[in-house]
Amino acid sequence: MLLVVGGVAAGLSAAARARRLDPRLEITVMEKGPVISYGACGLPYLVEGRVHAPEQLIVYTPEYFRKERNIAVRTGARVVAVSHPRREVQLASGERIRYDRLVLATGARCDTSGMAGADLPHVFTLHTLDDAERMRTFLRDRKPRSAVVVGGGYIGVEAADALRRHGLHVTILERRRHVLLREDTAFTAAVRKQLETHGVELRCESPVHSVEGLGADLVVISAGFKPNVELAAEAGVEIGRTGAIRTDEGMETTVRGIYAAGDCAEVQHLVSGRPAWIPLGTTANKTGRVAGANAAGGRERFPGIVGTSIVGIFGRGFATTGLSEAEARAAGFSPVAARIDARSRPGYYGGTPTTVELVADRSSGRLLGGSVIGDDGAAGRVNVIATALQARMRLDDFESLDLAYSPPFSPVWDPLLIAAQQLQKEL
Amino acid sequence: MLLVVGGVAAGLSAAARARRLDPRLEITVMEKGPVISYGACGLPYLVEGRVHAPEQLIVYTPEYFRKERNIAVRTGARVVAVSHPRREVQLASGERIRYDRLVLATGARCDTSGMAGADLPHVFTLHTLDDAERMRTFLRDRKPRSAVVVGGGYIGVEAADALRRHGLHVTILERRRHVLLREDTAFTAAVRKQLETHGVELRCESPVHSVEGLGADLVVISAGFKPNVELAAEAGVEIGRTGAIRTDEGMETTVRGIYAAGDCAEVQHLVSGRPAWIPLGTTANKTGRVAGANAAGGRERFPGIVGTSIVGIFGRGFATTGLSEAEARAAGFSPVAARIDARSRPGYYGGTPTTVELVADRSSGRLLGGSVIGDDGAAGRVNVIATALQARMRLDDFESLDLAYSPPFSPVWDPLLIAAQQLQKEL
Repeated sequence: MLLVVGGVAAGLSAAARARRLDPRLEITVMEKGPVISYGACGLPYLVEGRVHAPEQLIVYTPEYFRKERNIAVRTGARVVAVSHPRREVQLASGERIRYDRLVLATGARCDTSGMAGADLPHVFTLHTLDDAERMRTFLRDRKPRSAVVVGGGYIGVEAADALRRHGLHVTILERRRHVLLREDTAFTAAVRKQLETHGVELRCESPVHSVEGLGADLVVISAGFKPNVELAAEAGVEIGRTGAIRTDEGMETTVRGIYAAGDCAEVQHLVSGRPAWIPLGTTANKTGRVAGANAAGGRERFPGIVGTSIVGIFGRGFATTGLSEAEARAAGFSPVAARIDARSRPGYYGGTPTTVELVADRSSGRLLGGSVIGDDGAAGRVNVIATALQARMRLDDFESLDLAYSPPFSPVWDPLLIAAQQLQKEL
Repeated sequence: MLLVVGGVAAGLSAAARARRLDPRLEITVMEKGPVISYGACGLPYLVEGRVHAPEQLIVYTPEYFRKERNIAVRTGARVVAVSHPRREVQLASGERIRYDRLVLATGARCDTSGMAGADLPHVFTLHTLDDAERMRTFLRDRKPRSAVVVGGGYIGVEAADALRRHGLHVTILERRRHVLLREDTAFTAAVRKQLETHGVELRCESPVHSVEGLGADLVVISAGFKPNVELAAEAGVEIGRTGAIRTDEGMETTVRGIYAAGDCAEVQHLVSGRPAWIPLGTTANKTGRVAGANAAGGRERFPGIVGTSIVGIFGRGFATTGLSEAEARAAGFSPVAARIDARSRPGYYGGTPTTVELVADRSSGRLLGGSVIGDDGAAGRVNVIATALQARMRLDDFESLDLAYSPPFSPVWDPLLIAAQQLQKEL
């Protein structure tokens, strides 16, 4: 019997993939929450109102999995203990369940334990459908006029955008000097400018230990994100340096027969060559598939990530991949960076300003990372950099990429290639 | 003295790049037409009216090059003969000019010599600013009600789009079974559907030898495109199998001291491994840079192309790169293809239908090509495939690409990855 702990992205991907590989395997998914398979990345848009009902974010139901996939899914089933020698987990209810193989897809949480006042009624996290629903109700019934968002990561910035669109005065307080988990001064400055243009204040180097005294009608805590590794630790699984569960290329943990996937697991960073913990929905789905395949007897591998992400801030895409110059230096490279401003398309075809930064290693010429900021085309362009990173491409080759050109889509020299030429001069 | 023959994309890129490498080199550009440096790819939008004036398509003037780059540019200067042993060219005026190194950027032309009636006043090609201006005037003054476009390549399809927007009844006649230079039945069917939805008729396998009898008020000939290689041949340069000038990685021809770039030159196709002639503005600029650098004593290389292109047809992007399944088979691979329909973004965030096809080699697992059709994101997605092709990526690795995800930009499983998974099943 394959037991999967966690019924969102990684857990359900694992279960579905295991079923494909082994039509007869008994598969059970335990989800502690009331619903499964929701698009957590859509929560800010539920708060904003663009998504009208939580049901729009639910992709599959337990019934679907039971009927269509022959996978048992239990909601409200919190696994509180695991004994791997006995191949047994225990639920909060006391019920014990035996397994042969275990996939841990326990996710991550917003740890508010160090935050005084975190349980006050005007304080929210934005991690589950219930969180978003509560915030919507609060917005409708209490008509708050000001909000403080603690944490300038993706969810924090998206929540600030959503709340600002409700007309609130919004301030983001970020503990570090940088936002969006990117150690990149220019990138943070561009984010700040876009936020301020739309009336959101960003204060960096502003740690918050108590929500009392923030003086806001509504507080969103999107800081202190941590992987849920307690069960794994209890099962004797090694926790990596990042604080998440250590895994190999097959998403197996250090204990045979226990796999981990999604926001609770480390993966390899293909640029730094080190384990990384960058919890994102895309990686959760991919690692879930591989964990599920292998737990069902397959031999699949997940090579790793390059750390690609994008966030929309008032309509503009802010995208990064690989390492920033500062991060590359910290990882032991000798990075050189170039940043250029260009247009997404020819001016006569409505091109908008696009900023591209590329980072390469001086000694090897290898591309190490980049960022793209723009109202259109940012996702496509950062994905080109991400693909080049995954292929360990050198700047030389990147510079001659054969990218699609036609005036409705791009200028004849794509901003990516202009950036590459600029960087080549400095290399 | 460096002499460049041709003053549009490749020639001017060559001249500008040579200047950067050698500030003292004497550089002269000879352009046979009345203007230099125009965005030929913008001509259909000039006909459409989105571009209001030809000046919008002119990037640089001869004055700019003289003053800012110290490069002499002569317009109306047609080079009619070359004697490489004497390092001398002759202009139509009889004037002789000596050179040390020569860059041939003679471009291509629409060869209408086999077409009866091609010189009738209602018959146009769409290759120069003058062509587009004449067509605009004709549209305004003669108010044609029907048009036939001969040739279903990029310019033909774009011209059909532009003319249809002027209210004409438009028919495209294409000699081959396929359009847009892609041997791909499903792709052609999708193009046909989009054209027909917007009132343009497409007839394939319809060769035209005479414009008389077409019964149209306006005819656009966008077929019979040929590289201008006569000068090169006279200089003793080898012409490749494609009919264009053979070049090495440094864009040097088979005659030392003579370089070729742009629409008159062959380049290496990095997927088929064979020389290819795919005249596009992007390649013209890149090969021009390399030719200019090397003609000025540099040592740069142009590795080749993967054959990426995109065309907008009534707002939808039709993009291809690498080889289609049929082309891959003809090139000696054992191709397998998968085609999927997905959405560009989550439904709740306005995602639109997106079709992705990927082609891989059965024996090596290597990715060979792909196409993307969609109202948004087609360029970015085809560029990811193009980057993977340039890196000779295997489908295995492509399947785990770390692509940017956020609801305003893409679904959690990007259509590219869904296509990769589908193809993996069939491999």
